[in-house]
Amino acid sequence: MHWKPDRKSHLTIHEQIKEWMRTRIERGDWTVGTKLPTQRKLAAQFEVNRSTINLALDELKADGLLESRVGSGTFVANNSWNVLLNKSQPNWQQHIDASIHKPNYHTIQLINEYEQYDHIIRLGTGELSPELLPTKQIERSLKSLSLDSRAIGYSEPQGSNKLRSVLCEYLKKRGIDTAPENILIVSGAIQALQLIAIGLLEEGAIIFQENPSYLNSIHPFQSAGMRMMPIQRDGNLTETLRIAKRRKQSLFYCVPTLQNPTGRNWTSEERQILYETCAQLQIPIIEDDVYHELLFEQSSSPSLKSLDRSGQVLYVGSVSKTLSPGLRIGWVVAPEPVIQRLADIKMQSDYGSSAFSQEIVAHWLSSGIYESHILQLREQLKIRALFVEKILEEQFKSVATWEKSEGGFYIWIRFNEPIVNKAMFLNLLKKNVLINPGYIYDTTDIHHIRVSYAYASLEELKEGLNCIIELVC
Amino acid sequence: MHWKPDRKSHLTIHEQIKEWMRTRIERGDWTVGTKLPTQRKLAAQFEVNRSTINLALDELKADGLLESRVGSGTFVANNSWNVLLNKSQPNWQQHIDASIHKPNYHTIQLINEYEQYDHIIRLGTGELSPELLPTKQIERSLKSLSLDSRAIGYSEPQGSNKLRSVLCEYLKKRGIDTAPENILIVSGAIQALQLIAIGLLEEGAIIFQENPSYLNSIHPFQSAGMRMMPIQRDGNLTETLRIAKRRKQSLFYCVPTLQNPTGRNWTSEERQILYETCAQLQIPIIEDDVYHELLFEQSSSPSLKSLDRSGQVLYVGSVSKTLSPGLRIGWVVAPEPVIQRLADIKMQSDYGSSAFSQEIVAHWLSSGIYESHILQLREQLKIRALFVEKILEEQFKSVATWEKSEGGFYIWIRFNEPIVNKAMFLNLLKKNVLINPGYIYDTTDIHHIRVSYAYASLEELKEGLNCIIELVC
Repeated sequence: MHWKPDRKSHLTIHEQIKEWMRTRIERGDWTVGTKLPTQRKLAAQFEVNRSTINLALDELKADGLLESRVGSGTFVANNSWNVLLNKSQPNWQQHIDASIHKPNYHTIQLINEYEQYDHIIRLGTGELSPELLPTKQIERSLKSLSLDSRAIGYSEPQGSNKLRSVLCEYLKKRGIDTAPENILIVSGAIQALQLIAIGLLEEGAIIFQENPSYLNSIHPFQSAGMRMMPIQRDGNLTETLRIAKRRKQSLFYCVPTLQNPTGRNWTSEERQILYETCAQLQIPIIEDDVYHELLFEQSSSPSLKSLDRSGQVLYVGSVSKTLSPGLRIGWVVAPEPVIQRLADIKMQSDYGSSAFSQEIVAHWLSSGIYESHILQLREQLKIRALFVEKILEEQFKSVATWEKSEGGFYIWIRFNEPIVNKAMFLNLLKKNVLINPGYIYDTTDIHHIRVSYAYASLEELKEGLNCIIELVC
Repeated sequence: MHWKPDRKSHLTIHEQIKEWMRTRIERGDWTVGTKLPTQRKLAAQFEVNRSTINLALDELKADGLLESRVGSGTFVANNSWNVLLNKSQPNWQQHIDASIHKPNYHTIQLINEYEQYDHIIRLGTGELSPELLPTKQIERSLKSLSLDSRAIGYSEPQGSNKLRSVLCEYLKKRGIDTAPENILIVSGAIQALQLIAIGLLEEGAIIFQENPSYLNSIHPFQSAGMRMMPIQRDGNLTETLRIAKRRKQSLFYCVPTLQNPTGRNWTSEERQILYETCAQLQIPIIEDDVYHELLFEQSSSPSLKSLDRSGQVLYVGSVSKTLSPGLRIGWVVAPEPVIQRLADIKMQSDYGSSAFSQEIVAHWLSSGIYESHILQLREQLKIRALFVEKILEEQFKSVATWEKSEGGFYIWIRFNEPIVNKAMFLNLLKKNVLINPGYIYDTTDIHHIRVSYAYASLEELKEGLNCIIELVC
């Protein structure tokens, strides 16, 4: 599908590659300053030797179209454009550098990039493995979908009425009693955070969060100019919140059930205290509850939203961790004025989520296939957790500690030595092993990695963990 | 699906309604200051007389839970919470007022709201009528989809590789020669604008636009702190742009083919001049090209992107106007550094668009069913345009002028008198007719309405236009 040199052409392979690159520069696909893919990547894409790539690049450098920068790669030269056409073009890099939204951390950009390649062992991926996704069942359910023309037009601001009604029933099992008017359908939980950031908070507002926190690995609040404030579990919560809050707006973000990245569960008492404290100080809470159905043992801990009697809690759920992330369907449960505000901004951002995805989710939740799928999934995840824990017991005991998984995807491994830095990440990447290092959840943390037993195959999990232990011993 | 009073209950209807409202207030679904739906709406939802609603509201007001504000409706009273539980709750309105993103104009919020009701004649809706959507064909195509487990996981940052490859072929017909690396899949064209606003421009950047412009009816740039600058068609383009640009970053947004709201097409010469001028001044261009396939006669005017030899043009397309808006699938074609930047922010915003929608679009574009659907659709739209133009000829000639439609959805009607104000919009709404008044595209315009012949049935179009002519004569 992507371009490859033609072995039957009268031009040599490296001439064809040169010509292809020259065209990309000429038509502005590669603007001045564009960083070229690595030689390794180009060689893989074109199915040629690296020496062929090298030859093409060298000749283009001699022509003045490309330039090397020591240690950072090959770039389209500043004067390439003059060389070719004697014209100017927009300085896109300047545009990017001056713009508003924060880029992802470099480590996360690398994770997003390398997750695309088949040869990589994905030891950190917070996603169900292809073999755990109910692909065939979804395919079958597509065949039985009967579409209503009205349902595939532009959506109502709050999302499909059918799905919201189904969700009301579904949420009762979580102890949450709500109405369709109090639900907004979003494109995954992450969009809920984005909408809350720009729709409910002033610039400079304070976001309290657990430490470490998933929030640090994404930037919805930081990019909107908010300040993040980690809360220690052992401090005096009321005092900390009261002092920090002062005169700025604030909000508490947490994942009380199967926390990301640690996998921990708050006790009922901890939940009650957080809710009461925030209610007293009028600090709204975002409860991110996307993992709760993956608890191995039924929990007696209530969701914060089920305790809520003051419209204090913005509850966020999703099917990304349980059914399919490709659906991009999540939901927010909140007081009506909040839902209407977020819906208004969502209409300005993307005019609603995919109607097809909403139909599929409504079908799964209301027909009971979702529930039986979850039961099976939990068993599968438990087997995987035990498999990884056995390897850890056998090989990691002398260098690291961890807690037994209670559900979800993750084991939060703490190495005794402070070794989990960017160098370790890159060294493992060289061995084709991708990890989620702790520093993306807490910049000061160089002890932890988040191992996910959900994505890689058992074989890969074993091989990946072996690579780690080889590196650290 | 929504709550309704139970006629078999031992409680009277109005007591049940009171109890329901009290519960909503108690559990924080309706926080302090929440505006209640109108009596009319509540009566319709509960299927009761307005007098019953009135009685329930009066008693809740006497209890101190609700309060009336003259001319604006019924609200949850400030002290309702104290009355009920002697507790405090977050002041959500204060949160909303202080937050970053602009709300939609009130007129647009009303449009979004009233478009949900079946009894409304939607004379402005920029969307295919349910009878024009290929619902059954899409349903059939769902049955033949074969899903790949990898394709329904989290997406690659730029979107489905399959869809991007298919789009390269498809875009060739539009004169655009590109590669999958230069394409980003987005959730509709509007998301492209949102990503560009926060990913490529500094705060305070200048957005040049046509006047009137679709951009004024949404707020992606304004909410990110950019300044909008309308360009008059008859001025000296180069001088205007040069002076206005000064030292701030800038960008030119336009819809050269079947412009929204006017339906106009730029000539080839106008396109060439705009491209050359912007290239010379290094002002990037967003070409919003979502309507081009709906031209009634094949055009010889090239897309701006097909003229682009400097990576100057960010090209935006979508299937929302041609196949189904419920898919929420659009695309951006741009230089690689731009695409990578936008993809990085999209990953932080919603982790990609629906994998199912992407599969459906790839299937439609590559199998040829899309192309034959477009041919039929164009004929249907032409019939509708002629139908509306006939009514206009017969009834509107003495009060208004317009140009014959060349394609797409819209006729831009100019009334001789300056009568298209909010009062007219509301008066028509009282008669159950929803219009898109010109002032949402140009705040100073009180002469135009954008009539869409794409959504309402022929019968409704006739009735709606009758209502307008009755009102203005």
